Amino acid sequence: MTRLIRSWVESANAPDTDFPLNNLPYGVLSAGGVAHCATAIGDQVLDLHALEQANFLDFGGALKTGEWNDFMALGHAEWQRLRNILTGLLSEGAEAEGPLRPYLTPMAEAHLLLPFRVTEYTDFYASKHHATNVGTMFRGKDNALPPNWLHMPIGYNGRASSVVVSGTPVRRPMGQLKSPDDDAPYWGSSKRFDIELEMGAIVGQPSDGPVTVAEADAMIFGYVLLNDWSARDIQAWEYQPLGPFQSKATATSISPWIVTAAALEPFRVHTPEREVPLLPYLEEPGPMLYNIDLEVGLTPDGVTETVITRTNYREMYYSAAQQIAHHSSSGCPMRVGDLLGSGTISGPERENRGSLLELSWGGKEPVELVGGTTRSFVEDGDTLTLRGAAVAEDHRIGFGACTGQVLPARNWPKEG
Amino acid sequence: MTRLIRSWVESANAPDTDFPLNNLPYGVLSAGGVAHCATAIGDQVLDLHALEQANFLDFGGALKTGEWNDFMALGHAEWQRLRNILTGLLSEGAEAEGPLRPYLTPMAEAHLLLPFRVTEYTDFYASKHHATNVGTMFRGKDNALPPNWLHMPIGYNGRASSVVVSGTPVRRPMGQLKSPDDDAPYWGSSKRFDIELEMGAIVGQPSDGPVTVAEADAMIFGYVLLNDWSARDIQAWEYQPLGPFQSKATATSISPWIVTAAALEPFRVHTPEREVPLLPYLEEPGPMLYNIDLEVGLTPDGVTETVITRTNYREMYYSAAQQIAHHSSSGCPMRVGDLLGSGTISGPERENRGSLLELSWGGKEPVELVGGTTRSFVEDGDTLTLRGAAVAEDHRIGFGACTGQVLPARNWPKEG
Repeated sequence: MTRLIRSWVESANAPDTDFPLNNLPYGVLSAGGVAHCATAIGDQVLDLHALEQANFLDFGGALKTGEWNDFMALGHAEWQRLRNILTGLLSEGAEAEGPLRPYLTPMAEAHLLLPFRVTEYTDFYASKHHATNVGTMFRGKDNALPPNWLHMPIGYNGRASSVVVSGTPVRRPMGQLKSPDDDAPYWGSSKRFDIELEMGAIVGQPSDGPVTVAEADAMIFGYVLLNDWSARDIQAWEYQPLGPFQSKATATSISPWIVTAAALEPFRVHTPEREVPLLPYLEEPGPMLYNIDLEVGLTPDGVTETVITRTNYREMYYSAAQQIAHHSSSGCPMRVGDLLGSGTISGPERENRGSLLELSWGGKEPVELVGGTTRSFVEDGDTLTLRGAAVAEDHRIGFGACTGQVLPARNWPKEG
Repeated sequence: MTRLIRSWVESANAPDTDFPLNNLPYGVLSAGGVAHCATAIGDQVLDLHALEQANFLDFGGALKTGEWNDFMALGHAEWQRLRNILTGLLSEGAEAEGPLRPYLTPMAEAHLLLPFRVTEYTDFYASKHHATNVGTMFRGKDNALPPNWLHMPIGYNGRASSVVVSGTPVRRPMGQLKSPDDDAPYWGSSKRFDIELEMGAIVGQPSDGPVTVAEADAMIFGYVLLNDWSARDIQAWEYQPLGPFQSKATATSISPWIVTAAALEPFRVHTPEREVPLLPYLEEPGPMLYNIDLEVGLTPDGVTETVITRTNYREMYYSAAQQIAHHSSSGCPMRVGDLLGSGTISGPERENRGSLLELSWGGKEPVELVGGTTRSFVEDGDTLTLRGAAVAEDHRIGFGACTGQVLPARNWPKEG
């Protein structure tokens, strides 16, 4: 059983902090308008850019680039070296306490930026409960899972340019809409704008040709929480025959801290038992999911939050390593900074569903919120907050919140 | 009618050259292993990196970056300024002839690299003849066009990491395969590996929110030929419900020279008449396609080439400007270096079809090659060559060839 490593940063020893010394997640702090690589420790942010500047650390300048891509490219040995150094510097009783204190900023005052440059973004559809729920709604119970679903992690390429950091407001999109009853499509704002609770895996080492699941697992630098905002009504009209496009391109929010695979190592769990055997290129040599509790809070403008769902990353049918192995199977090169969305993570019960589409069953069973209002989809002014943590006996490896408030659509061109 | 601008580079005045002074396309030359921005003039390549180094040109170092992205980011005024300067320097009678000659390299000796860093890659499905052909094969004549097709340019996000420059060999992919007769999927090499004849539009100016068609047109820096290699059998099994993924991720080849929108200006033509009116956000304020003759040659290993198709870019139903307007409609940011594939360009007759899938009608009517062999799909050792040019009375604005030879699949993991 993994135990807390105590730090001289007192708040890092609290059992409910997301950022004990065991975590050491990587983010980017705006320091006087300049992007600085940083780590979180308790309720403080430690400026690693400044530490490399002051020669406490030497990673060839990789920590002075304002994004984690160059550091990721350095590879495993350097990943481990930084983690070891930081663990030493921040441990209870370390001599570095005095010299390091000036490099701490209270988290409450920190303005956090996108932690890495997203090279390309791929989104999967790899939680069986989610695929079954959505399939049942759209195709009926007997045809819920597409025929290929149990054989491969179904995915599509998303849009990296629309990935934003937690806290960035998200404007409700306009788009072409047409319900089955409409004679012709019209231009309007999305009426079925939704969230998707996902984990994002970040590729930290490149590949050039097909990789095994074990190789794929070793390529993953870390994970973030990910909200793949989705306009269900735009999607319904556009997605045949080539898949979702503008319905998924408004924004994808990620949490500001990359929680490393190293920090999550004690929380590995197996994917669920297979109903049909996988082809050898997708077989896992070990446990490649993680036991991470997840939840989503919905806060109408100025009102109390309601936690609308609770689930766990272990509900996935395919791991990120399997997704990368499949993604590379055609010879597709993977690159440092590629972001892979797990797909919406739904659990077995209604209260474990990872999207409002599922929670409200397509709008037929609106979700009740604290204070008596309800939601079928997100409304203007709502703030959505994803939270997640791997929980040990005396500490938790948390992700920090991934939030986004929905702004009203900009009426451009004029709504039809 | 546009006329040839004569150059002191004699070969640039030949009526059959792809690169008269009217063209001035932008590429990247490997100069002693270093990537140098360059232009083509007749049968010569002019090293612009070296010219900026030697202070003949001053674009703030943008021509010394080994890729055209930074130059594109400078915007229209600088695009026009470079074009004006080069036209002056290379015109017949220009005093610069003597000083510039040392910066010329014969095209025959030039090793050309990818001309720009592909930020993201989007592929469309926007030629009506192509969509009708494919739809007829898969869904029958009456349901050939999907219901949304006449209302929006259907597209999906492709994979930028797999875009390669002309001349790069392309390895036949392995993947999951399952025909309707198979009980279960198996792992194997693609048996229906195909080409797609397309044009690629390159975004040279960014946007942050929806743009009009006119704004989109002004964002386009230039065009390349594009071959979107496609594994039809991998696609058939994987593509429901979220679209093509690994079937399109092996490689996308582009021609080495970016032909600028400025050079193509005299060849603008209108998109075809609409069968149903478009929503206002997709209406074109002017002609936004180009009259560009296109053809594909197929050369079995060591054998004579057969031209298997001839068509024209004006066959598109949607222009690149309309595609960008649609692409940004959800608020999706567009960035410098985004590449947009037009979609396979097919004309009305059999001999105008832009893919072997269509030419051989799904393998039922193999294409006859010079020498008596036939092709349903591409075979190992085949070289595919795309060519294109906008043709004026006394010159042509050509793209240079976009070639790729197919290598046998690498048997990894062992074929099932």
